[in-house]
Amino acid sequence: MNQRYIWNDPGWGLNDNAPDRATQFGDGLFETIRTAADGDIPLLEFHQQRLFAGLQKLRFNESAQQKALVALAALSELSEPSSCLKIMVSRGITDRGYAAAEDLEPLISVQVFSASPLVVSALNVGINTLRLARQPALAGVKHLNRLEQVLARQQFAPHWDESLLLDTDERVVEGVMSNAFLYIRGRWVTPELDCAGVRGVTRAWLLRNYPNISIEVITQSDLLSVEAMAFTNTLAGVRWVSDFDGRTLQQHSDCTVWQQDYMRMFA
Amino acid sequence: MNQRYIWNDPGWGLNDNAPDRATQFGDGLFETIRTAADGDIPLLEFHQQRLFAGLQKLRFNESAQQKALVALAALSELSEPSSCLKIMVSRGITDRGYAAAEDLEPLISVQVFSASPLVVSALNVGINTLRLARQPALAGVKHLNRLEQVLARQQFAPHWDESLLLDTDERVVEGVMSNAFLYIRGRWVTPELDCAGVRGVTRAWLLRNYPNISIEVITQSDLLSVEAMAFTNTLAGVRWVSDFDGRTLQQHSDCTVWQQDYMRMFA
Repeated sequence: MNQRYIWNDPGWGLNDNAPDRATQFGDGLFETIRTAADGDIPLLEFHQQRLFAGLQKLRFNESAQQKALVALAALSELSEPSSCLKIMVSRGITDRGYAAAEDLEPLISVQVFSASPLVVSALNVGINTLRLARQPALAGVKHLNRLEQVLARQQFAPHWDESLLLDTDERVVEGVMSNAFLYIRGRWVTPELDCAGVRGVTRAWLLRNYPNISIEVITQSDLLSVEAMAFTNTLAGVRWVSDFDGRTLQQHSDCTVWQQDYMRMFA
Repeated sequence: MNQRYIWNDPGWGLNDNAPDRATQFGDGLFETIRTAADGDIPLLEFHQQRLFAGLQKLRFNESAQQKALVALAALSELSEPSSCLKIMVSRGITDRGYAAAEDLEPLISVQVFSASPLVVSALNVGINTLRLARQPALAGVKHLNRLEQVLARQQFAPHWDESLLLDTDERVVEGVMSNAFLYIRGRWVTPELDCAGVRGVTRAWLLRNYPNISIEVITQSDLLSVEAMAFTNTLAGVRWVSDFDGRTLQQHSDCTVWQQDYMRMFA
């Protein structure tokens, strides 16, 4: 067993009364959090911000916000060195039907996994055949409706490490497990995520610290002009791309800086 | 307790090893099935067809198909009179990450609820403010990613019984809990569901038995010409609409025929 629970509210799954709403509808949120070598959580503030934005967007109740705060505070006391913490929040338990009472008791779970070391090696990235649906009501949120990612993961060629997803309007969105940064015509850009995609915590950290990255609408034809590329994910950090859709890309010096700065936070 | 489990594979929710994939990703399917007064399941064939189409579209393994067949056969032996049977299938248990091994053990659960009697009273229906995303890879399937329905249900006005959903291209799709049939310019039409929506079992039964209903693309402007309307759902049967978006609609005689035929099946 390479994981353990450190928080596990009773009621997840099919309990006596009824299934919880994460199981029935994917009515919940999650965060995957990396801890540093000393057990500290350098990006906790970003995780908290995104989790709370999600709770608000899905209209979870006050109780869910309070419980999530307590769980995040508990995490910051944990001091699990170089680990991955996965927190899940379910809206609670209801019989059947989409309606949820306002006073539902939310469920929280936290799992601890050992995290792989952060590495500097490059990625081989292909373009996915699945197109993400455009849904502003869910965009940006790390919710538990992840069938698109499950289907996109099935499309991977054996030599791909990650895969770039476009939406049904052929706009670039993200990787299946990470956010995308593209160096096009001498500038770093990352896709606007107001219609699809997850607002990654490492993406937010990069955008705050490196003001030379712009958030833009990136179309499929822009991909022909890509000179360098990076993918980010809290667990894997910043990774540069050496092979994109069969083309060889060069490592950009900015990428190396981001990567080193990220690694330093977790050292 | 107004429900009980008659099938509940161990492993749903947060078991010892890891959460199952329905909980983590909504990686599963469900069916809600009505039984007749004698315990028979008149629409079992349609449920089986849709469930298998879903298993195939999401690329569940052979084992899931076999297990689903066994579960459906068990249901047909059950003889629970006038009940609702809810079957859920999860792809299985995995640690973390979207990839799933081919030999995963699927999980099945079946709950029995008492079903409300079928009634002939009319519905008050409003137009929802949420727009469904267009995702051909998931359209038609009764999968466990139902956050859009959860959000749409939150938008109900107090006097609404059901709410009509359009997609992000302003095309009519379905109700939040049922399929829509519209009488426009002297013809019955029901929306094409190849980009969004669930292919309802009662919808399939109607389309097979009443060839005067066409499947068409229905736009928002077509709604101005609606003369009569019905919503269908396996549990509630066929219901006509007396109030749509503040306008009074008349009951159409076809609706009465469909309703009586449906009720006869379950009597």
